[in-house]
Amino acid sequence: MYLGVDVGGTKVLAGEVDDEGVVRRTALRRTPGRRVDVATVEDTLTAAVMEVADGRPISGVGLAAAGFVDAEGERVLFAPHLPWAGERVRRRLADRWGVAVDMDNDANCTALAESTYGAARGVVSALIITMGTGIGGALLLGGRVLRGANGMAGEFGHMQVVPDGLPCECGLTGCWEQYSSGNALVRIARARIGVEPSVLTELCDGQPELLTGPMVTAAAEDGDLVARQAFASVGDWLGVGLGGLVAGLDPELVVIGGGVAAAGDRLLEPARSALSRSLVGRAHRVVPPVVAARLGPESGLVGAALLARSVA
Amino acid sequence: MYLGVDVGGTKVLAGEVDDEGVVRRTALRRTPGRRVDVATVEDTLTAAVMEVADGRPISGVGLAAAGFVDAEGERVLFAPHLPWAGERVRRRLADRWGVAVDMDNDANCTALAESTYGAARGVVSALIITMGTGIGGALLLGGRVLRGANGMAGEFGHMQVVPDGLPCECGLTGCWEQYSSGNALVRIARARIGVEPSVLTELCDGQPELLTGPMVTAAAEDGDLVARQAFASVGDWLGVGLGGLVAGLDPELVVIGGGVAAAGDRLLEPARSALSRSLVGRAHRVVPPVVAARLGPESGLVGAALLARSVA
Repeated sequence: MYLGVDVGGTKVLAGEVDDEGVVRRTALRRTPGRRVDVATVEDTLTAAVMEVADGRPISGVGLAAAGFVDAEGERVLFAPHLPWAGERVRRRLADRWGVAVDMDNDANCTALAESTYGAARGVVSALIITMGTGIGGALLLGGRVLRGANGMAGEFGHMQVVPDGLPCECGLTGCWEQYSSGNALVRIARARIGVEPSVLTELCDGQPELLTGPMVTAAAEDGDLVARQAFASVGDWLGVGLGGLVAGLDPELVVIGGGVAAAGDRLLEPARSALSRSLVGRAHRVVPPVVAARLGPESGLVGAALLARSVA
Repeated sequence: MYLGVDVGGTKVLAGEVDDEGVVRRTALRRTPGRRVDVATVEDTLTAAVMEVADGRPISGVGLAAAGFVDAEGERVLFAPHLPWAGERVRRRLADRWGVAVDMDNDANCTALAESTYGAARGVVSALIITMGTGIGGALLLGGRVLRGANGMAGEFGHMQVVPDGLPCECGLTGCWEQYSSGNALVRIARARIGVEPSVLTELCDGQPELLTGPMVTAAAEDGDLVARQAFASVGDWLGVGLGGLVAGLDPELVVIGGGVAAAGDRLLEPARSALSRSLVGRAHRVVPPVVAARLGPESGLVGAALLARSVA
């Protein structure tokens, strides 16, 4: 039995993945946040893994971490939304659980899953963008993920898109993920609560600080205007950023994964429109399709399990 | 005898290149511009090639074109600073000159030259940015240039860096090359002529519209404050854009080519400083060196000649 664990900035999702990429059972936990100690996060992962295993023997666990993983898959060097900063996460958890553990960046795991079972199957080049708490990314070339000199390729979320723009948890300002991510979605919607009539007011019990991304997604589905405008804004910024990346990398396909992509065309339609508007020489090229990750919000954990399986 | 011709937005530089990459003789012409007819540009190329050949037989000519070249190296599909728009440039010139002609994007040619003879020799991954009239680029991976699905990878100059920013010749607004390129350098300096004391006023005979990039470079070398500030601004924007690209692509090395790179550290120092400031997780990674193309402004034509030689 192989498990994958997607360790995001907001939630931890562990799952058992069979040898055809199907998720058999899952366990969900809330990520304790960036300001807790490392042990607390690792306790959370352990609880999720044990719930899925339910006493059965585990062959291997793959971790998809929302952070900068070193080229050896050993340490999380830096993570804007998690407390790890150089710890040997892979070895610590392998020792604690007594099983083989493998680790990669979450977007790289999503890319691996989507190229094996999902939207990027059979595609030569694809740009993968994961929209969760922040933005992650991966560039698939000839079925392989571009790793980069430090093993850190794909961190597109911290391109500056607005000079002197919003402060980012990474320490920079004006980062793309401040305008297009789960955090951005919630921030934009939150600012309208109490200002405009919205079902979000009830969903968060009148306490804007309790608002979450899934609440905004649900409200948009119900036709709520504030929620829909938040998606329009985040989707538009997604497309503007894609415009620059598609001009530079010229991929055959763009795949959007991560939790926010669960909103489907509500996110992707404004993104396609903005991409088409902001892509240089668009009349002289094939504009790549922008599609949702086919494995949905589970693509990260499926890729992590694939990683564990392929290394075993 | 193999020739390379760098067809830029401002000038055409043809040269004879020997089998060790040394440029034996060159001919320089002014690019007629984007609004002339295609024949006029091709006459200019022909004159430059004939001057270099000087009656001697030619084995092959390589063209480095400042535009979007198709994956076959046959057509220039689109060029913000040149009149070609889909013409079979390669075949037209091969027929006209009666020799084998090969063509690629200018930044791809620079990348090929720098990886063979120059700054990127022996490097696994490098980001090449060419700063001429506009910005071109190429991503070298394992000694090969990333081509992309449409053969258009590397067009980093048209990433939006300022929302609702300056209009670009490509039809978009806020493109990186509007803030960091030869055109940007001249625009910034021009706006100060007559406002602040500057040697540029004499260099352009009091006619700001006659100001050129090489004049600004020369004035900066002489200590002119207006010219130096123009380089500081263009260099800073170069580094900001590099910050996003290095985060995403994680190259081992960044090479800056094109005419503006002739200014050396006057351009590169502010760029390094801005890159270091705007790169996510910079404390946890090796920040790649930013170096000038070793073959200087001739790197495009050397790469074009290499292309002709390698195909022959």
